[in-house]
Amino acid sequence: MAVYTTLTAAQLAELIAQYDVGELLSAKGIAEGVSNSNWLIETTRGRFILTMYEQRVAVADLPFFLGLLDHLAARGSPVPRTIHDRAGATFRMIGEKAVALIEFLKGVSVDPPSPEQARAVGAALAGLAVNSADFPGERENTMGLAAWRGLYEGCGEQGLASIDPALPELFARELEFIAGHWPADLPRSVIHADLFPDNVLLLGDKVCGLIDFYFACTDVTAYDLAVTHAAWCFRKDGAFRPRVSQALIEGYAAVRPLSDAEWQALPVLARGAALRFMATRAYDWLHTPADALVTRKDPMEFARRLSFYATRSAEAFPHAAG
Amino acid sequence: MAVYTTLTAAQLAELIAQYDVGELLSAKGIAEGVSNSNWLIETTRGRFILTMYEQRVAVADLPFFLGLLDHLAARGSPVPRTIHDRAGATFRMIGEKAVALIEFLKGVSVDPPSPEQARAVGAALAGLAVNSADFPGERENTMGLAAWRGLYEGCGEQGLASIDPALPELFARELEFIAGHWPADLPRSVIHADLFPDNVLLLGDKVCGLIDFYFACTDVTAYDLAVTHAAWCFRKDGAFRPRVSQALIEGYAAVRPLSDAEWQALPVLARGAALRFMATRAYDWLHTPADALVTRKDPMEFARRLSFYATRSAEAFPHAAG
Repeated sequence: MAVYTTLTAAQLAELIAQYDVGELLSAKGIAEGVSNSNWLIETTRGRFILTMYEQRVAVADLPFFLGLLDHLAARGSPVPRTIHDRAGATFRMIGEKAVALIEFLKGVSVDPPSPEQARAVGAALAGLAVNSADFPGERENTMGLAAWRGLYEGCGEQGLASIDPALPELFARELEFIAGHWPADLPRSVIHADLFPDNVLLLGDKVCGLIDFYFACTDVTAYDLAVTHAAWCFRKDGAFRPRVSQALIEGYAAVRPLSDAEWQALPVLARGAALRFMATRAYDWLHTPADALVTRKDPMEFARRLSFYATRSAEAFPHAAG
Repeated sequence: MAVYTTLTAAQLAELIAQYDVGELLSAKGIAEGVSNSNWLIETTRGRFILTMYEQRVAVADLPFFLGLLDHLAARGSPVPRTIHDRAGATFRMIGEKAVALIEFLKGVSVDPPSPEQARAVGAALAGLAVNSADFPGERENTMGLAAWRGLYEGCGEQGLASIDPALPELFARELEFIAGHWPADLPRSVIHADLFPDNVLLLGDKVCGLIDFYFACTDVTAYDLAVTHAAWCFRKDGAFRPRVSQALIEGYAAVRPLSDAEWQALPVLARGAALRFMATRAYDWLHTPADALVTRKDPMEFARRLSFYATRSAEAFPHAAG
């Protein structure tokens, strides 16, 4: 969490003048998102989030990300719509960096969630799948199955072992299992692919906002439920939370019923999801300079979730055995 | 700029319930202040800044800092008032850390300021001196004259030379000059002591907020003008800005006329102010671990301002020669 770039008051005022949003009243750099700089902007007409895209987000992907937000918001999903500038553009350049102005949404991120909050999140996630069905954009999942072997090679056996002696074998074994069992024919759609608790804004049990779509991509629809399951259904100490798990899945299935093939695939999709975050965290752990502004996240947290899915998935997905 | 501590939604809601401010609607960690964690909080009743005091601010000083804000706000200075909790307290503890809820003020920090903005800031600064005259609290300036020799020793000649070969001699010579010429009998009062552009919120030429009083202390009243002068009247490239300087001083003197002795003392007070920031920045430069979240500030920026005051102060303070 960081603000990477400084904008002067003059730059901000000049930028805001390109939008039909009134006069600038306040701007606070906020600690949100790990790969962009963000400001909470107040004008005489309302509040907005100004995002400046730093190195991790490709400008070429912005039409997909920002077009998706507008598409989903228009269909009633609780996502921020983009504010278009006076020429109709969804993003602008300040020097070499792209910026976008998006709607401010209320709500706070909860962690840990209650079962009722997880149910609401499941329903909202299913709503993304339903509402994005006619979205014409496509984007490859650059953090999907095809990328995981590269992350393994990028970490190296020695690097992985330096994090935890058991990690190289777990990673290699699971990679082989998941690649061999990955479902080939499940429905695909646009997915969020990163719906961690800090990307959901809640008030009580109501979902006010799904945010940070910068990993959104086209992939197996049910994989999004698996990612969200891996992100939401465990305590910090690693313990599985069965009631949160059940509520999340029920909330999802009430809005978008899962096919038999999807139920059967959930265990391997969840192993893939846990592996994905274990892999990227391990890679970042080994490749983040010690003086970086970003706090490194513990890869072993997801190694433990991966082991859970590998050995106890019936506790999470009883329908899969049916 | 950083948010050092994470608060869960449950902790936030529990905290907010201790105040008569309505229900929590939103909370964003903001990049403001260098030694505290801050959140911009929205409730059903308004917006607030929640500050959690990290290691640099002593809990024992909070009654002074927060009482001062309430005192100044009641007398019309544009400072945030503190929100008292249901028991009347200005701060509370969360675990071992103190937190305070303060008023949110609009405005943006400008850098560089225009002369008219500097004039308004000078007037607001003088207003602090006028309005704090009957404030009963006192606090020693822990970053004042008495501390500068300790900072010199703490840097060491070798350390200073590692920053710039000319720095040890400049520091030693100026320290001796300033200590030998420091005015003994000028009026004293509570001063802000750190009124950099990022601690002032402006809309156009109007000062909406003076913030971050965590260096406030009892010291020579006119030293506050000298600090503000050193902070505001130079370009990033080091060039002196005579029109900003003139406007800042005129704005100040229009609200709080300076005595002859104060006019005469401004050059040495300004040398002291420049030395103070050169000294603390040099100390932090040498003692901040490379992996710290805080960006180190260049001490040479204030070494150049110090040299300006030592050799060309008549350009900044023509009255001092009169």
